[in-house]
Amino acid sequence: MQKPALQNDRYLRALQKQPVDRTPVWMMRQAGRYLPEYKASRAEAGDFMSLCRNTELACEVTLQPLRRFDLDAAILFSDILTIPDAMGLELYFETGEGPKFAKPITTTRQIEQLTVPDMGSDLKYVTDAVSLIRQELQGKVPLIGFSGSPWTLATYMVEGGSTKNFSKVKKLMFAEPEAMHQLLDILADSVIAYLNAQIAAGAQSVMVFDTWGGVLSPRDYREFSLAYMEKIVRGVTKRSEDRDVPITLFTKNGGQWLEAMADAGSTALGIDWTTDLADARSRVGNQVALQGNMDPSVLYASPQRIEAEVKQILASYGHGTGHVFNLGHGIHPEVDPEHAGAFIEAIHKHSPKYHR
Amino acid sequence: MQKPALQNDRYLRALQKQPVDRTPVWMMRQAGRYLPEYKASRAEAGDFMSLCRNTELACEVTLQPLRRFDLDAAILFSDILTIPDAMGLELYFETGEGPKFAKPITTTRQIEQLTVPDMGSDLKYVTDAVSLIRQELQGKVPLIGFSGSPWTLATYMVEGGSTKNFSKVKKLMFAEPEAMHQLLDILADSVIAYLNAQIAAGAQSVMVFDTWGGVLSPRDYREFSLAYMEKIVRGVTKRSEDRDVPITLFTKNGGQWLEAMADAGSTALGIDWTTDLADARSRVGNQVALQGNMDPSVLYASPQRIEAEVKQILASYGHGTGHVFNLGHGIHPEVDPEHAGAFIEAIHKHSPKYHR
Repeated sequence: MQKPALQNDRYLRALQKQPVDRTPVWMMRQAGRYLPEYKASRAEAGDFMSLCRNTELACEVTLQPLRRFDLDAAILFSDILTIPDAMGLELYFETGEGPKFAKPITTTRQIEQLTVPDMGSDLKYVTDAVSLIRQELQGKVPLIGFSGSPWTLATYMVEGGSTKNFSKVKKLMFAEPEAMHQLLDILADSVIAYLNAQIAAGAQSVMVFDTWGGVLSPRDYREFSLAYMEKIVRGVTKRSEDRDVPITLFTKNGGQWLEAMADAGSTALGIDWTTDLADARSRVGNQVALQGNMDPSVLYASPQRIEAEVKQILASYGHGTGHVFNLGHGIHPEVDPEHAGAFIEAIHKHSPKYHR
Repeated sequence: MQKPALQNDRYLRALQKQPVDRTPVWMMRQAGRYLPEYKASRAEAGDFMSLCRNTELACEVTLQPLRRFDLDAAILFSDILTIPDAMGLELYFETGEGPKFAKPITTTRQIEQLTVPDMGSDLKYVTDAVSLIRQELQGKVPLIGFSGSPWTLATYMVEGGSTKNFSKVKKLMFAEPEAMHQLLDILADSVIAYLNAQIAAGAQSVMVFDTWGGVLSPRDYREFSLAYMEKIVRGVTKRSEDRDVPITLFTKNGGQWLEAMADAGSTALGIDWTTDLADARSRVGNQVALQGNMDPSVLYASPQRIEAEVKQILASYGHGTGHVFNLGHGIHPEVDPEHAGAFIEAIHKHSPKYHR
């Protein structure tokens, strides 16, 4: 099927360090609970996974923030844990408790039995959503596909849900490193197949979320998280629809390892607010574009305070392309949508001078 | 009262970069739930705060790990949140839920009414414990006193307990920075009075735990956390009992800001495992001693694996004094005490060659 031409490619151009007229912006979790229209769709769907599995509703919530705000990219509405769910671990959500697996990994025997999920059946609901969103976007902005990183998926699979100390997954990592590597390897293969299926369905850029790489030592990070993201970078489709497909790696609390991350070969790195963007640019800005990095909690403050923070971050990156503005983590559910609007407006207002 | 001479000053000497025969070691939360004898004392006391307030039992649990292991320091058994409790916020613990305050800070009016607690009454139970522990230690090893950092205390006081997103305290920080500074300032004054009372009662070294400084941006960290730790460093007693009183600052996830931390003037910095110790030493090792930094989860692995990790960390610091071995965070409750023993033994076995 012929897809409509892309009207706004600012996001893709900035990732590839091509000139842009202003700094592109999107927000992690821009389709989310801070929007009343999202809550309505979620209520219609029932639980969170039913919303992800409902093609029309997943498309609807993906588009909602674009109706409110002048954003430069859409991101597929889904969860980072769809792969382990498709592997049979049975993802569910208890209210206020975060994700859980009914059948977590508790033995190395279970790891040996894992297989790469079939993208055409087990995860077809995701690629169906991608196709429909692309169609409904009508070329307005590019669509970002995504996955959790192997290490991050493994933490949830072994812990069975959210965790404070990462006791179980680190016990496995330190006591049975071979089993851990086996798990991470099949997850990397699964992520490659998953991202490639999203690209084939119409995703124009992909992002890998490594939410928990920052709980590792520098050496363990390279061995148990970064090595598998590097494998993903190598395995992911490089071009689609006659355009490069940029890939962004984001490790929360990964600011100490940007040099190693930049060497993994991705197009861009996501940066959280614990790293100064000027510092990040001077360390790795020749190799990769940078995405970030406002503390999402700044959105609790007044529009004037938000604007001041945006100006500060724009100044810290400085002149030229290679910066995609974003929050340093997902937008919080309690944020006033008008404050998100003030954030986006401030980027529109103050960024053009950095691109002249 | 005349205090017995110190038999083992390895810990104090290493902090001040004086030669030692081997790398000193202690463990954060060494008096804790991984020890069955601790659990017995805790059961005897009732709840956690009753244990802290019971002079004899607080002394007993402080000494327990020293009976099992050849450690180079004792640390006062207490909680980081005693100051806000003494300010009237009423600290309590619900099983498995972490600390909570019955009367958290919800208005700026409450902040205006806070006063520095009276060390001779509200916090006398702490200095009584310090005095008794010093007496019972009989000069075996030095005693470390401690406090939470102003920012870390403020997070609990405003959130009312543990938090994932730090929504309330960041809302206060971004929207009402003057009120936040007023809160942090009175907390810094309180911490100074508190640490000085501990030193007067017999603490031979002090440590400031900034558990949550790592959730801030570099700029906000300097303004809202580090500036107040710097005030504490300036205000704390420098000499006692004819000896220098070293002060250690520890910001969890503070690896990106070690240079700024070293400039705050403390004797040493605590380092968690997300920073390579060789890297930390090359960045700030001329200014300060370093404490750390094994991932406490390594203690889940076999004694052989623990020994290998200890060797690696000793090698990363390299030759010479200025290193106090520790975990990068508190020991986990599920750890086998024999594994803690293997950790300590490995340091005794492998560190002397770095001090020849």
